[in-house]
Amino acid sequence: MTANTLKLGLIQHASPGPPHAQPGDNLARCGALIREAAGQGATLIVTQELFTAHYFPQVEDDGLFDLAESLDPERPGPSYAALRDLAGELRVTISGSLFERRAPGVYHNTTVTFGPTGEEVGRYRKMHIPDDPRFYEKYYFTPGDLGWQTFGLPEADGRDPAARVGTLVCWDQWFPEAARLTAMKGASLLLYPTAIGYYNHPERGEPADVREQQRDAWLTMMRSHAIANGVFVAAANRVGTENDLTFWGSSFVCGPDGRLIAQASRDRDEVLLAECDLSLIEPQRRGWPFLRDRRTDSYAPLLKRLDD
Amino acid sequence: MTANTLKLGLIQHASPGPPHAQPGDNLARCGALIREAAGQGATLIVTQELFTAHYFPQVEDDGLFDLAESLDPERPGPSYAALRDLAGELRVTISGSLFERRAPGVYHNTTVTFGPTGEEVGRYRKMHIPDDPRFYEKYYFTPGDLGWQTFGLPEADGRDPAARVGTLVCWDQWFPEAARLTAMKGASLLLYPTAIGYYNHPERGEPADVREQQRDAWLTMMRSHAIANGVFVAAANRVGTENDLTFWGSSFVCGPDGRLIAQASRDRDEVLLAECDLSLIEPQRRGWPFLRDRRTDSYAPLLKRLDD
Repeated sequence: MTANTLKLGLIQHASPGPPHAQPGDNLARCGALIREAAGQGATLIVTQELFTAHYFPQVEDDGLFDLAESLDPERPGPSYAALRDLAGELRVTISGSLFERRAPGVYHNTTVTFGPTGEEVGRYRKMHIPDDPRFYEKYYFTPGDLGWQTFGLPEADGRDPAARVGTLVCWDQWFPEAARLTAMKGASLLLYPTAIGYYNHPERGEPADVREQQRDAWLTMMRSHAIANGVFVAAANRVGTENDLTFWGSSFVCGPDGRLIAQASRDRDEVLLAECDLSLIEPQRRGWPFLRDRRTDSYAPLLKRLDD
Repeated sequence: MTANTLKLGLIQHASPGPPHAQPGDNLARCGALIREAAGQGATLIVTQELFTAHYFPQVEDDGLFDLAESLDPERPGPSYAALRDLAGELRVTISGSLFERRAPGVYHNTTVTFGPTGEEVGRYRKMHIPDDPRFYEKYYFTPGDLGWQTFGLPEADGRDPAARVGTLVCWDQWFPEAARLTAMKGASLLLYPTAIGYYNHPERGEPADVREQQRDAWLTMMRSHAIANGVFVAAANRVGTENDLTFWGSSFVCGPDGRLIAQASRDRDEVLLAECDLSLIEPQRRGWPFLRDRRTDSYAPLLKRLDD
């Protein structure tokens, strides 16, 4: 553990309660795990995606928009206020994934980060929105309009004051562009609050080998972002079965060489701790200088849908 | 094996002979393996990177530019002529990686593809050029100026006439942009002639765990391109020790879900055959519709070096 080591805590848990659970149910469960992480020395703590409730986008129901909360610092909803107060009380940084009610009819899947003085230090609205059977997110979430986001770490920790952390969310993890753009903004670590699992219907669900392929593909994509960009990558995923979905947990942290540093179980509530030595990034990037060699003169078609 | 299955043959071999070997030495060795692949039913055959000689960029020596050959169809060098004639004779498509002498002082790392009538059907000049100790490629290779390239497959094979194959080379494999841009041009399969290995010096070489991490990172990045783009990915790598480098072979093909279909040994000359059912691409992309959801409105900073 060097002076440049960041101690990260990922919060992985089930979300019990009825589909229309009130946010408070899982706030308490998650809050207890955040306290445990801080007690074990984590200074940056990350929740899973939309941790306050069941994974509600399994159905399209306009009553479920009622789960969204104000993230206006002047008039915050209960989850914003709870995370803000917890960060200040525990003197840690917390990135929490929340369902944002921005205006009537405009809702986002948003990560808000609070620093150890309790102030908001970062906000990211999920940019890539999925829509698949049982993941009807395009119905609920307006695509993010804040662009690619990073936040700074407290200088008091003695780390490189330039070190920054990038916030992305779940579906973003399948897009190399999102990881690249956030790393290009100076992120040393990419955080992905996540809600990913498989369809568990006994007849129409996915066979075991497909489930395993999906989980492996998820890890492969995420580790590739670490390698391609020379950054740490961390994902906090939920566990448990909710209706037709079983979330596969496996929250993890990998280093800038793509190797796993820590990984949680597939099925238990856990605090996953990992020490990220940010001083490993520069030698990794000197050894594999991909950022030096990008052919920026030839990337213009990336701004198109297809190059046809 | 459906009507839409492409039988691919990857050629993996050592490159014996002195550092200043004449191209002919390995043309004969590779030619025999190409014949073997065609004999086993491969209709698309791919060589490893710069297969005609030792991996010469381990040193900077201006005499080694003499290894470069004309790829002018009117006045071709011996390797171009040999591959062209072999494709026509065997009635197969061959993608061969050659050291191109384009003009005095302008040399490229180029893949030329010949169709089953012997005509040239595609040409790609390596876009991303590495430069690390023992991989002094920036000295030898002018960065490619043909952009991202695909070639079509013969319609006579009964496959989707729109199916195209993308050609990339080695160092390109670390850049998600290269895979994306080539897939966006319609490629169903990405080919990567490759020369990758580890530094084997007994005292200053890389320890075993780093070697293994590097090989794993290479496979991880390549499989991530398959997953992110819903395409087949194939790499043909060399084997054997040449001066300070030991190439790790492991040539492979993976499907659009990222799973390995076939993989060669780390150390033997081999023809690796793989059946690529191109009809798997569309259901894969329907299941994971990443190309639908790209946030092209927010990717403009990808055209910069860093977004600082």
